[in-house]
Amino acid sequence: MKLIFHKTDLQNAIAIVSKAVPAKTTMPILECILLDASGDEIRLTANDMELAIETRVEGQILEQGKTAIDAKLFSEIIRKLPDSDVVIEERDEKVSILCEKANFHISGRRGDDFVGMPSIEKEQHICLSQFTLKETIRQTIFSIAASENNKLMTGELFEMEGNQLKVVSLDGHRISIRNVELKDSYDKKKVIVPGKTLMEISRILPGDNEKEVTIFFSRNHILFEFDQTLVLSRLIEGEYFKIDQMISSDYETKITVNKREFLDAIERSTLLIRESDKKPIILDIREGSMELTLNSMIGSMKEDVLIHKKGKDILIGFNPRFLIDALRVIDDEEIDIYMVNSKAPCFIRDQESRYIYLILPVNFNVTR
Amino acid sequence: MKLIFHKTDLQNAIAIVSKAVPAKTTMPILECILLDASGDEIRLTANDMELAIETRVEGQILEQGKTAIDAKLFSEIIRKLPDSDVVIEERDEKVSILCEKANFHISGRRGDDFVGMPSIEKEQHICLSQFTLKETIRQTIFSIAASENNKLMTGELFEMEGNQLKVVSLDGHRISIRNVELKDSYDKKKVIVPGKTLMEISRILPGDNEKEVTIFFSRNHILFEFDQTLVLSRLIEGEYFKIDQMISSDYETKITVNKREFLDAIERSTLLIRESDKKPIILDIREGSMELTLNSMIGSMKEDVLIHKKGKDILIGFNPRFLIDALRVIDDEEIDIYMVNSKAPCFIRDQESRYIYLILPVNFNVTR
Repeated sequence: MKLIFHKTDLQNAIAIVSKAVPAKTTMPILECILLDASGDEIRLTANDMELAIETRVEGQILEQGKTAIDAKLFSEIIRKLPDSDVVIEERDEKVSILCEKANFHISGRRGDDFVGMPSIEKEQHICLSQFTLKETIRQTIFSIAASENNKLMTGELFEMEGNQLKVVSLDGHRISIRNVELKDSYDKKKVIVPGKTLMEISRILPGDNEKEVTIFFSRNHILFEFDQTLVLSRLIEGEYFKIDQMISSDYETKITVNKREFLDAIERSTLLIRESDKKPIILDIREGSMELTLNSMIGSMKEDVLIHKKGKDILIGFNPRFLIDALRVIDDEEIDIYMVNSKAPCFIRDQESRYIYLILPVNFNVTR
Repeated sequence: MKLIFHKTDLQNAIAIVSKAVPAKTTMPILECILLDASGDEIRLTANDMELAIETRVEGQILEQGKTAIDAKLFSEIIRKLPDSDVVIEERDEKVSILCEKANFHISGRRGDDFVGMPSIEKEQHICLSQFTLKETIRQTIFSIAASENNKLMTGELFEMEGNQLKVVSLDGHRISIRNVELKDSYDKKKVIVPGKTLMEISRILPGDNEKEVTIFFSRNHILFEFDQTLVLSRLIEGEYFKIDQMISSDYETKITVNKREFLDAIERSTLLIRESDKKPIILDIREGSMELTLNSMIGSMKEDVLIHKKGKDILIGFNPRFLIDALRVIDDEEIDIYMVNSKAPCFIRDQESRYIYLILPVNFNVTR
């Protein structure tokens, strides 16, 4: 095998596929990137057996072939080369990398030993802009569960119906919902996508508003196609939670508040919380103003925030972290929060239900 | 005590003195910053008993007093406040911090329990620009010894004579020397300054070329005075190494090389070295070109670098790290390297001896 690349093209392609190289594995071949020039295109592939990424890279094939190279070493060497043409040659699992006067010799592995990207039946698909997908992931990914105890909670629901895409994540304390309008209409479909896949996708998606991502679905897989790249992931099997019955539009209290002011005040209050210490922030909602209070071992904090209120006064406590996570991903300047009582979830949502963030309150002792 | 600050002034002052707050200590009072407004100025002080930093901060004294506040908490709270006036009030070791509508209550400690900055006899002094001091530290600090086995090696020699300041660090494998010309002439003086002090100084020095630092010396202390800040440190006791007898100007081979090209090639070679693996980089110096070679478990690397050579051909090996450290802090585009033989140190130095970097070579097996 003998190939010529421009350094930058190769470096970018390695950065993309590296996201599917497992940090730890008992199979050394998975720590490699497959460099495949056995056809008339050059493709780089990495595969951790849950997630596989393949990308096409510009380059010249002087001699066809394929080989697998340790991902970390390959990436570091290419990154440190001068900004010039890179010649990669493989003969008997010995790889040489030549760029200007720098010449590396490292060992490769047989390309045929590499477990490539499985091919899937593309049963259905949807299209949306890279920007929208990237944003939607960012706006929901924080409320998946970290622990594997309930596998369903480690993924996100993608539910298509007509020209609507609904993305949902939940962890038992809160639910995040984003409703996205698609350009075209599609058949009904519901899948659960692993959170890890979505995080890696959002890292490698350039996020261009002009460019599209096509998402294909098969029985067990989801495939993202954009630019020169394919990302294939297994789906999580099972029936997702029935969230519609958890969402209600009844309320006793509705407040409208400036998002920035509310978020800043909550963030300040968390300075008094050390890890493992679970102190609620208490909102005392009255006519025209909301008093935030947090008491901890370290000290206490109080702050008034201006609000518009409709309905009853209420005293309610939350895990400040959950409020912060939701507020950080809402772009609106003014937000509406709906509450029923101090035991029932609050809803942060806009008029058009483009977003709904449900957060359960916490108990607290009123000792003030 | 009751004081009013502008948030930014207070935040900057806290950032400066925080450098003297110990990361770990058995004396909780040392984790605090002293806020002293018992006179007609407001001063912040931190002291880890080796290093003490005091800075004056603009503010209004409504009521005199002093108190000590946990440095980490104080710093985090002030940083998160709105960009506005901050009122700090202390009564019976209870501290309240008020800014716009945010109101924190935390506990303080008695200001009198805080070990303030000791006063010293200012026996001698020198002046130089902040920029020069900051640069000189950066250009020498990397070759102090990390281990405390030899206390002298953990500091840097500051030697004044006439209008010359010589700064030296060494760790048994290499020596870094910078000679700085001062505007004025001073009496002879030699002190050993702890490396940690110099690192902290270089972090808080704005590094302005127009502004000066005055350095005072007493028997056991060094005091840096700049802007509104005083940094006081103990000196390391003892007689520093006689470095003059290690420096020679004889050579058998002299090469001139482009610093950037040489540095890039060495940095690339180190990609083949994993931690704990001690592989030398071998320089094969001939007429007009130098071939760099590195062989490791991972692979091998070769690269030619153009040079101008005077004197004999030579084959010599170095710890690549040591070459990298020295080359990174030299600003010259072209550098001269002087060698005697493959067992004797090489010298990287300029014509005027503004800098001298001595590096010992390492043994290697020629199996090529």
